[in-house]
Amino acid sequence: MLRTRHGDVATPVFMPVGTAGTVKAVAHDRLETVGVQLILANTYHLYLRPGHERIARLGGLHRFISWPRSILTDSGGFQVFSHRDLRRISEEGVHFQSHLDGSRHFLTPERIMDIQHELGSDIVMAFDECTPYPCGQTDAEVSMLLSMRWARRCLARWRELDDGSRGLFGIVQGGVYPGLRQASVESLREMGFSGLAVGGLSVGEPKNLMYETLAYTLPQLPHESPRYLMGVGSPRDLVRCIAMGADMFDCVLPTRNARNGCLFTSEGRILIKNACYAEDPGPPDPQCECLTCRRYSRAYLRHLFMAGEHLSAVLNTIHNISFYLDMMHKIRQAIASNSFGGWLEGSDKFPD
Amino acid sequence: MLRTRHGDVATPVFMPVGTAGTVKAVAHDRLETVGVQLILANTYHLYLRPGHERIARLGGLHRFISWPRSILTDSGGFQVFSHRDLRRISEEGVHFQSHLDGSRHFLTPERIMDIQHELGSDIVMAFDECTPYPCGQTDAEVSMLLSMRWARRCLARWRELDDGSRGLFGIVQGGVYPGLRQASVESLREMGFSGLAVGGLSVGEPKNLMYETLAYTLPQLPHESPRYLMGVGSPRDLVRCIAMGADMFDCVLPTRNARNGCLFTSEGRILIKNACYAEDPGPPDPQCECLTCRRYSRAYLRHLFMAGEHLSAVLNTIHNISFYLDMMHKIRQAIASNSFGGWLEGSDKFPD
Repeated sequence: MLRTRHGDVATPVFMPVGTAGTVKAVAHDRLETVGVQLILANTYHLYLRPGHERIARLGGLHRFISWPRSILTDSGGFQVFSHRDLRRISEEGVHFQSHLDGSRHFLTPERIMDIQHELGSDIVMAFDECTPYPCGQTDAEVSMLLSMRWARRCLARWRELDDGSRGLFGIVQGGVYPGLRQASVESLREMGFSGLAVGGLSVGEPKNLMYETLAYTLPQLPHESPRYLMGVGSPRDLVRCIAMGADMFDCVLPTRNARNGCLFTSEGRILIKNACYAEDPGPPDPQCECLTCRRYSRAYLRHLFMAGEHLSAVLNTIHNISFYLDMMHKIRQAIASNSFGGWLEGSDKFPD
Repeated sequence: MLRTRHGDVATPVFMPVGTAGTVKAVAHDRLETVGVQLILANTYHLYLRPGHERIARLGGLHRFISWPRSILTDSGGFQVFSHRDLRRISEEGVHFQSHLDGSRHFLTPERIMDIQHELGSDIVMAFDECTPYPCGQTDAEVSMLLSMRWARRCLARWRELDDGSRGLFGIVQGGVYPGLRQASVESLREMGFSGLAVGGLSVGEPKNLMYETLAYTLPQLPHESPRYLMGVGSPRDLVRCIAMGADMFDCVLPTRNARNGCLFTSEGRILIKNACYAEDPGPPDPQCECLTCRRYSRAYLRHLFMAGEHLSAVLNTIHNISFYLDMMHKIRQAIASNSFGGWLEGSDKFPD
């Protein structure tokens, strides 16, 4: 259980991604109905548009987007480093150009804390350098050490800004190198964050390498505070990573795939454009009770997708988020009743 | 009051346009909440995709799209004739090419009845030729007379198909020529349709010419059955045309404008992209109680629009449809209490 100023969040928890202050295509009452307690918003995107100062003048992010429950903001590190041609890193911070209009910006760990403070996030992430895959050990070490120095600066600034009512999470880096991951965890534990996240995974590495890295990284994270695995993953990944000790997740998979016509169901992935669904009167997932599955058929969803209708993204996204949230709800029940072991054994049957 | 197999429809009524079996961007429960009793679907679009035979195999249009209330289908005349380069008209019917894939089709009045029968519409429209504007009197007369012969063929086929539980409406044509409109009305009245529609307006003519045409056409329509003004219009048009005797309307204006960021409000049209709304914390329309106005600010709606977010179309459309439906509800109340005269006098204040 996480407790934020905007309510309790049962863990393990999956956070739908609301990049620009909206979980794409879905109105907030739908998210509430599905049981979403916590969404992730992207600092980088909100900083550029509509601007954190504007959001602050409008009463902060919760009020601006009209979301009364909890919000975690990432630090923008991943986004800044994704646009590799547009940025230049120094010890002090990052110079980069906006992907929207080419305007030039300079962000430091301190400034990133200021921005997230102005947004009013419940959970704030430290600014880190997210190393790509592949990345040699020397580069990974230099980058990790920079991220650790930045983490310390984030923490120092955050203590000036916050009264302790909001969480600041540190981010473990170190690529796929056990020694670096261990050193990173040790640095961050010593600094005293309210939670730790594992970053730098799900960035293109083979999945077995991700699991190897998690196998030696997750056990080192403190058990008394949240352990957030960033950017992961498929339903199958969630089951397996929860078994390994992670208890917070975010991923664009359910929302992005929904817009591309890919539905997660208890029978596996469904590509709704496939001709076999053209006259299928059944619901997307017979075991799901979401708005989409209660009311609409695969045939209709296929039609909406083929016709390029807005409603396709809406209904598909409602279903995929419901599928993820429902799975997490059942996992929490299984953990409470000591029956989660069966989930792990049967994890092959979850969509990957 | 209209009575269909799928419920009663209070008139005057505005029908949101659901071209391809979806009122664009809005899920059906939202339409139900707003009070939509009747939607319009496009025969031409559904015939081409996903195909009326497929829809019939899936149990008809209501079941296919999961809409339990009433549906009116247009005849496709307007769409066929809109694609002027793609069609060739004969006495027998219309040869045309699909705007989707160039495939060739031949539709006759009889076939159009068959298609709407298979769709299972509650209210079926006769197949007519919709004359463009401008159109000379001779052309308008030739076209109108063809539409009248087609109307008779539609009626003959419909009597073979239907048990009388569904309505078939004839469509008055005749351009902007009083004599032609009168002749058309007389032909249709004599044939015995369950309702009449005024077609061939709102096709690019100056608005005063539309009103002139309505001023002599609407009074000739039978008062004991529905009088449907096709493709009209703005909120101001609705008030004025109701005063002239029309009691059914459809128009893409509220839905299409919503997607383009234009909101209808009690204070007039709002173009949400305008910079003046960037930090406006108020609702789109302070007098509206729709989901959008209860929860979201102009500032947030502007942000969604500028960021090209799916949710922009969703929330704007919910508001615009609510605005139209709420206005019609209040007009029905005013008519019932004999106070509609005041609405007409103040019609200038409604958005045009």
